[in-house]
Amino acid sequence: MSLVVVGSVAYDGVETPHGKVDRMLGGAATYISLAASYFTKPHLVAVVGDDFAKEDTDLLAGHGVDIEGLERVPGKTFFWAGKYTPDMNDRETLTTELNVFADFKPKLPKSYLPSPYLLLGNIQPALQREVRGQMKHIKLAGGDTMNFWIKDFREELLATIRDWDFLLINDGEARMLSGEDNLKKAAKKILAMGPHTLVIKRGEYGAMLFRQDSFFVVPGYLLETVFDPTGAGDCFAGGFIGYLAQQGFDLEKGHISRHELSRAVIYGSVMGSFCCERFGVERFRTLERKEVDARFEEFRKFTSF
Amino acid sequence: MSLVVVGSVAYDGVETPHGKVDRMLGGAATYISLAASYFTKPHLVAVVGDDFAKEDTDLLAGHGVDIEGLERVPGKTFFWAGKYTPDMNDRETLTTELNVFADFKPKLPKSYLPSPYLLLGNIQPALQREVRGQMKHIKLAGGDTMNFWIKDFREELLATIRDWDFLLINDGEARMLSGEDNLKKAAKKILAMGPHTLVIKRGEYGAMLFRQDSFFVVPGYLLETVFDPTGAGDCFAGGFIGYLAQQGFDLEKGHISRHELSRAVIYGSVMGSFCCERFGVERFRTLERKEVDARFEEFRKFTSF
Repeated sequence: MSLVVVGSVAYDGVETPHGKVDRMLGGAATYISLAASYFTKPHLVAVVGDDFAKEDTDLLAGHGVDIEGLERVPGKTFFWAGKYTPDMNDRETLTTELNVFADFKPKLPKSYLPSPYLLLGNIQPALQREVRGQMKHIKLAGGDTMNFWIKDFREELLATIRDWDFLLINDGEARMLSGEDNLKKAAKKILAMGPHTLVIKRGEYGAMLFRQDSFFVVPGYLLETVFDPTGAGDCFAGGFIGYLAQQGFDLEKGHISRHELSRAVIYGSVMGSFCCERFGVERFRTLERKEVDARFEEFRKFTSF
Repeated sequence: MSLVVVGSVAYDGVETPHGKVDRMLGGAATYISLAASYFTKPHLVAVVGDDFAKEDTDLLAGHGVDIEGLERVPGKTFFWAGKYTPDMNDRETLTTELNVFADFKPKLPKSYLPSPYLLLGNIQPALQREVRGQMKHIKLAGGDTMNFWIKDFREELLATIRDWDFLLINDGEARMLSGEDNLKKAAKKILAMGPHTLVIKRGEYGAMLFRQDSFFVVPGYLLETVFDPTGAGDCFAGGFIGYLAQQGFDLEKGHISRHELSRAVIYGSVMGSFCCERFGVERFRTLERKEVDARFEEFRKFTSF
């Protein structure tokens, strides 16, 4: 069933130990939509400038992404540039030019409103909340956030995630949001803030899923070479919500089990791992669904005992 | 079947964010033996001074550890003191007094020689090699090492591990030994050095097992409070080899499968997790085998999908 994805579409400049690309398609909503497109039809809500290239809209449309909600305004597209540390567990931001993204007000096309699934990429919490409020037929809604909103927009963020089914953040953000170093304690506190499902991404170490009565942990996929981790967390989110949307799961009706959610975490991990195999969105130009399912089975093989 | 454990028996002073103990039983061979005792009969080879307390030999003997090979010589027992960082992922050594351990030459009682299983704790590689050479009925032998031997005794270490079935080290040591940052590449290189099985311990992130044709990864057990991680890696080793010894596995006859080794990794993880729940060896005073098996099943529950 269809999924609405809200967030940034950008151009990125990225340097890793394996190379350097000055300008390539990026942005959270781009990665989320591309990853989710292997499971369901994503409906994108984002803004770009008049410099946004036709080949980039073509890539999205070619993956079945509905770009009716991709607003185009005069000016330049959001640009971000960063450089990774040698072990690629950290990165330094070199440039952030918000450009047209600075005034982003998500506009949902009417055709998007009946969608039952919603993934809110990391944007201003008040904007995330406004979008959530407009969608009246939601079966499952959730999203991402970051240290900046946790630190300086805490009340706004808490009011926003109160209405979410799931929150999908990394381990550092979970510690910051909860004030707890220990992730099990952090999860308890965050689950008391509203979302009944919490997914904590741990980069190369994998991911965790917490609910009130259960949890699930998966190690990361072992790649021999991580070319570029940019977007991996967003691809995780796309695989996670994409799989749940494909299955038509409905948390409110109690149709979603820990088993099903754990499969969604594996599909998230699978999509994140593919993302790292090439620079930017390159891997998605050739990736096929059968490769996704084969890697899912690989996860089963190397984690079962 | 019976297991020989060689390594240090010591007194430790430990400070963690949860408290401070000035002097308590410690040492790699102590932790390995106690953990392995839940599965098989460990035969300990170590040296202590005349200050070694009766209550400490009693604890070992009470767990069925054969202490015939626990040599007692004039002088003081090896003493180590350290302080953990607030997140407990790192520690600073405050004191190392080798004392009687400085001249440790492992002496195997005759009754130990027919043992089919051998775990060599982290000691001088030449001593590890000598012990391995004395044991003529080995079905499975392996051990641990550390950065000091990898860096300054490389040739000696390589000559030693060439004859081992398994090497059990942490991720930093695997990177140092192989010269590869990526653990999959590191594992390939290490498996070419002799051992047909490599276990990489990753602390709170779990463990990995590599063989030529397969690998297995498990995330760490989520404790709400890690009181003291001292000895957790050694307890992992004790659980790993203890389980294999209990099952009577025999690598040379090809009796050991990836499935069986992965179960050994889980038992290792279980024993390491219990170790962290109290200071030093405290948890083993009350731990029962049924708790061990219950935690094994917990691992299955939180990792299956």
